Amino acid sequence: MDDFDRYLARQAATVEAFLDRHLPAEDSYPPSIHRAIRYSLFAGGKRLRPVLTLAASEAVGGRADDALPAAAALEMIHTYSLIHDDLPAMDNDRLRRGKPTSHVVFGEAVAILAGDALLTHAFEMLATTCGENDSVEPAKLAKKDRRLRAIAVLAKAAGIDGMIGGQVIDLESEGRSVEPATLDLIHRKKTGALMGAAAHLGALLGGGSEEEIERLARYGRELGLAFQIVDDLLDVEGDPATLGKSAGKDRKAGKATYPGVHGLERARLRAQELAEKAIELVAPLGPKAEPLARLAERIVDRNS
Amino acid sequence: MDDFDRYLARQAATVEAFLDRHLPAEDSYPPSIHRAIRYSLFAGGKRLRPVLTLAASEAVGGRADDALPAAAALEMIHTYSLIHDDLPAMDNDRLRRGKPTSHVVFGEAVAILAGDALLTHAFEMLATTCGENDSVEPAKLAKKDRRLRAIAVLAKAAGIDGMIGGQVIDLESEGRSVEPATLDLIHRKKTGALMGAAAHLGALLGGGSEEEIERLARYGRELGLAFQIVDDLLDVEGDPATLGKSAGKDRKAGKATYPGVHGLERARLRAQELAEKAIELVAPLGPKAEPLARLAERIVDRNS
Repeated sequence: MDDFDRYLARQAATVEAFLDRHLPAEDSYPPSIHRAIRYSLFAGGKRLRPVLTLAASEAVGGRADDALPAAAALEMIHTYSLIHDDLPAMDNDRLRRGKPTSHVVFGEAVAILAGDALLTHAFEMLATTCGENDSVEPAKLAKKDRRLRAIAVLAKAAGIDGMIGGQVIDLESEGRSVEPATLDLIHRKKTGALMGAAAHLGALLGGGSEEEIERLARYGRELGLAFQIVDDLLDVEGDPATLGKSAGKDRKAGKATYPGVHGLERARLRAQELAEKAIELVAPLGPKAEPLARLAERIVDRNS
Repeated sequence: MDDFDRYLARQAATVEAFLDRHLPAEDSYPPSIHRAIRYSLFAGGKRLRPVLTLAASEAVGGRADDALPAAAALEMIHTYSLIHDDLPAMDNDRLRRGKPTSHVVFGEAVAILAGDALLTHAFEMLATTCGENDSVEPAKLAKKDRRLRAIAVLAKAAGIDGMIGGQVIDLESEGRSVEPATLDLIHRKKTGALMGAAAHLGALLGGGSEEEIERLARYGRELGLAFQIVDDLLDVEGDPATLGKSAGKDRKAGKATYPGVHGLERARLRAQELAEKAIELVAPLGPKAEPLARLAERIVDRNS
């Protein structure tokens, strides 16, 4: 474990502690849904999106604290999307990260409602928990303005123009041959939009300038596409033991993938190019943005 | 049709025009989900919640315009909850308002995603569309403060402590005998919370005082419970032709209902008492609140 691994682990632990503190206890009434929410939220994910949010806040000189509720909201929305994507009517996955999926453990009804609850709670958290410690009235109001913007950005990225739209196009493309432009659109919407929002919200709530916010949002979108291409590559080449899920799933499901459309070599090259573009985008921010650059390298080099 | 019918029809038409204007067109890409969203949103509902929001705004001296985005958000959240409640894994309903339900027409995957999209879009609308016309800076910021509060109130009412929590308790109570206190809890969460939020948001965004906001939120909660009791009664006594759905569904599904637990006579009496309490709550607001009082009378006297 090097210094950067420790940095990532520390940021992920900060997000997990915040989530644990701000969610109702597992034995709250009615227990089934609270258990289902915590089961999926604390299933050992990489916490990539919330870590991106905290790192983006620090990259513009903000405190991680300012962006913590947004980081938590991002992870809740990511988790809801996984629960709903795994449902029998969608991807029909019975395993995720080596554990039975939500609907297998809690039944479909509770899984659907747990996803709905996580999505709803993400917006409640952004509307109530950010920047409550500020005592200066104008600063408080300016921060509230940024919180409203954050809610709008997150909803847009998670909604019909972003993640949900991507999932619909993806489902409708199953078993068909897909144009390269459509594949880019699916990946950019399904994965890029929410990762773009993760960096966007960090820069926004960390107090970044408009130029910094736009720069980091673009960084997140490029990184998100790179991440998804690597995901596609790992599905072809990865070791199931390291992945925590079976390989070759995409092909079996007839999913449109980067290696499927462009071949392995060009897919690898494209992920590398996107990561380099992301690194270039954050370079002008100097040493504070170093973790963002390292994150981009890590994402294309990962094996799980 | 009397004057009050015309008032209700006018307010409902205002909300529908606003929704139509602010949602992507039906032929937007990808078309299936946009068709599914519009199919359920424009299925001829009573628009009770958004009309409540507009009437609450006017009752505190606000303009209906100030509350329109909130009214639209309420209707989107109500519609999403119907789409998800109708799913095979939940209530498994194939007809609503005399039309096939969303998953019957578009398939389960698109129905789940259309619900998710409506929920997400409701928050985007509240975060972006309210009060953009104000030109005075302090007033603008104060309004943004109220918009943040509105998002928090709506998320809480729609979430695990409100509507979703009620749906979970309801599903888990099916086929069991239920205590009167639990039945009250189910109805208050499942229906009362969102109708409370409808009136709450109207008063909040219409510029009401804290006392008025609290008063109207209570009015909405009492009215919501009355509405649900009447729904239970109509399921036993109603005429299927007028209802647009089959009667006796609750009993067949083993649902906990007011007539089932308390008997028809006491259920009728309780709905009447709650409506009277709601009317008392808005009486101090004077003639501006007259539509809210009429709405309470109408809700207990309805036959569909």
